[in-house]
Amino acid sequence: MMNLSADAIKAAVAAQRSRAEGLFDELARCSQRPRGITRDTYGAGENAAHEVFGAQAASLGLEIRRDAAANTYATWPGGDRSLPAIVAGSHLDSVPHGGNFDGAAGVIAGLVAVAALKGLGVMPRRDITVMGIRAEESVWFQVSYIGSRSALGTLPPGALDARRIDTGRTLAEHMTASGGDPAAIRAGRNELATSAIHAFLEVHIEQAPSLVELGKPIAICTGIPGNFRYPDARIIGRYDHVGTPRRFRHDAATAAADFAVALDKLWEEHEAAGLPMAATLGRFHTDAAAHGLTSVAGEFHFSLDVRAYDADVLANLEARLKGIVSEIEARRGVRFELGPRASAAVGIVSPVIRSELEQAAVLLKIPAATIGSPASHDAAAFAAAGVPAAMIFVRNENGSHNPDEAMKIDDFLQACGVLTAWIAANCRA
Amino acid sequence: MMNLSADAIKAAVAAQRSRAEGLFDELARCSQRPRGITRDTYGAGENAAHEVFGAQAASLGLEIRRDAAANTYATWPGGDRSLPAIVAGSHLDSVPHGGNFDGAAGVIAGLVAVAALKGLGVMPRRDITVMGIRAEESVWFQVSYIGSRSALGTLPPGALDARRIDTGRTLAEHMTASGGDPAAIRAGRNELATSAIHAFLEVHIEQAPSLVELGKPIAICTGIPGNFRYPDARIIGRYDHVGTPRRFRHDAATAAADFAVALDKLWEEHEAAGLPMAATLGRFHTDAAAHGLTSVAGEFHFSLDVRAYDADVLANLEARLKGIVSEIEARRGVRFELGPRASAAVGIVSPVIRSELEQAAVLLKIPAATIGSPASHDAAAFAAAGVPAAMIFVRNENGSHNPDEAMKIDDFLQACGVLTAWIAANCRA
Repeated sequence: MMNLSADAIKAAVAAQRSRAEGLFDELARCSQRPRGITRDTYGAGENAAHEVFGAQAASLGLEIRRDAAANTYATWPGGDRSLPAIVAGSHLDSVPHGGNFDGAAGVIAGLVAVAALKGLGVMPRRDITVMGIRAEESVWFQVSYIGSRSALGTLPPGALDARRIDTGRTLAEHMTASGGDPAAIRAGRNELATSAIHAFLEVHIEQAPSLVELGKPIAICTGIPGNFRYPDARIIGRYDHVGTPRRFRHDAATAAADFAVALDKLWEEHEAAGLPMAATLGRFHTDAAAHGLTSVAGEFHFSLDVRAYDADVLANLEARLKGIVSEIEARRGVRFELGPRASAAVGIVSPVIRSELEQAAVLLKIPAATIGSPASHDAAAFAAAGVPAAMIFVRNENGSHNPDEAMKIDDFLQACGVLTAWIAANCRA
Repeated sequence: MMNLSADAIKAAVAAQRSRAEGLFDELARCSQRPRGITRDTYGAGENAAHEVFGAQAASLGLEIRRDAAANTYATWPGGDRSLPAIVAGSHLDSVPHGGNFDGAAGVIAGLVAVAALKGLGVMPRRDITVMGIRAEESVWFQVSYIGSRSALGTLPPGALDARRIDTGRTLAEHMTASGGDPAAIRAGRNELATSAIHAFLEVHIEQAPSLVELGKPIAICTGIPGNFRYPDARIIGRYDHVGTPRRFRHDAATAAADFAVALDKLWEEHEAAGLPMAATLGRFHTDAAAHGLTSVAGEFHFSLDVRAYDADVLANLEARLKGIVSEIEARRGVRFELGPRASAAVGIVSPVIRSELEQAAVLLKIPAATIGSPASHDAAAFAAAGVPAAMIFVRNENGSHNPDEAMKIDDFLQACGVLTAWIAANCRA
């Protein structure tokens, strides 16, 4: 698979440890908030991360460019620039009060791989581009994969008018303020032609503790879930006095509880049937302006995210949930308003690259599990656009989207090793 | 039962229709808010209502006095002032964005009865006092029956330090600003000696639509529920990424849903067993500062009110709920913190007065149901202090604690008729 020895690759990657640690520290310093890390999408936190990334890439002698969505590309030019490039990267934004590794690890892994390959004296024939992607975290604009889909020309119409939940300003306004050019995106111009990309590889922390459970440092991803989402659903009941007898109530909170319990039961059934999925009611609340100790809740708000690795499973789940909603409406005398719907297609991992990554891990003697991604990732946007895509997960003790993300640098360097070996074997053909 | 004819009493009460309508209108005018009625406890809305009540009572020639809790008393002096007084009244505060009748109806009923009896030329031997009570609605300070318990000397120590949920200022501060004297209450002085009260009678709108269902204008109350409350309970789980597999989750929202569904099932069982109760999760919500579409909820907040007419039923319910909490904690990997507990004793209605009220309704040919109160009332505080207490409910279409309370003045005057007849029969002995 490669001319370089496994030991040489491992040593070259190990030599990048202090670079990696320094970069993680620098990113943390510029996005630390009173509680956790906040690299807000098209805001101060994300912008600072792109500056850190660009400066480091420049110091490695890479070509830096920005596109209309303000994604940052750092390219190590190949001998034949007409060949499709290898793109390795991930996103540089985070959720509010998140951790330092979700996203950033994939960008730093790309830099580590390039630095290691340079150290090994590799001369790539095709371009190797490390991509710092914008706006992956959908919590900010309630839109997924903004940066990668803008680059690929697959951002849906209307997304540029979405408003950031905290500032109320549009995506187009935020993009402009971060040095982007939303008018160019509206005009249909995009940076990455699918035919110009050989493969997209993304290293990412695992967002569940499966690898902790399995006792392995990394995993090769078998698939990225698709989802359907109702970010802003409501249940309309009736506010009533706390003493109202049961038969007269239209209790929106108890109706919501029925829904949550039914959803959890559906998940339990799917799990027992060997059909992986996940369902989350992230926001789940009575109305702060009207609720109180002595009133039956007349209104309830919730967000719903349901994800699975199979489009048919997703379609079936959505149909079952609609049946559950109707049953609760009839029984509790309430009305559900599911509101706007969003969805993402299931992301197919390239079976060829997946197999090559597994082989690389074996050669490097790195214990690697194979798991389905619990989360959505930019790699899914590349796969949906027809780019061969693959992912490597890094063990992470405390889940992600929280200040306690805990990725060990040793585990991270194992993932970098597999990535470096794969690029070494594929950048010269 | 009385020397006055039923027809004479009905005519005398009917003659008070425009006084009653005018008073309800005046109260609405001084406490109307953009949405509904707000007579905030020891605030502008409640203070205005006491002014309206005091002015009307003065125009009827009654003696007006205020006590240390700023309750308002309007007394028609009896021939023998050493006899225990009849007290009729209710509270003048409301929940935020409530209706015009909850509470106020009982005060206006007292004025209507006094005016009707004056019109009939009755000469009472004992004092008849109409009482405008402060601070019944526990939503403001999370404390029940503040006004009546201050008057009776049964306000628990520490209540004066409770803070109003919206202003953050203490009950003592609010009381002082409304003309009260919390230091006198702290010193143990109270206005009403139990031995000086012959009976306490309270007219109140029904807070459920049972009378609408039964097709009757009024009901004689058979009992007032006691309760236990956890106004500020929490569930601590763990925030996790939206894709986290089920087995790793510590989902506070789904744990809350389990609790709500179990509570509702407990209620259903009690109903089937003929044990009346009610259970309400008025506040039921994820944490607005941390929740989001793409995070599993790590924290949940709720308020709980459970009420029943039997102390043993209440004790059993609380024990069962604690068992449910333990089961959910173990199964979901979360921790419940129930927080401060409050409770109110079951309010026993005087069987003698209840029977006399039923007889009065028969004599006046007013169709009267007998029902347990769905709600807590000041009458329960009087009963707990050893005062013979009773209540008359008025039909009310849309529940209470909301802007759509709908009491018909015809129904209200029927309740006033029964109250007037009872006072007529009992004020001369």
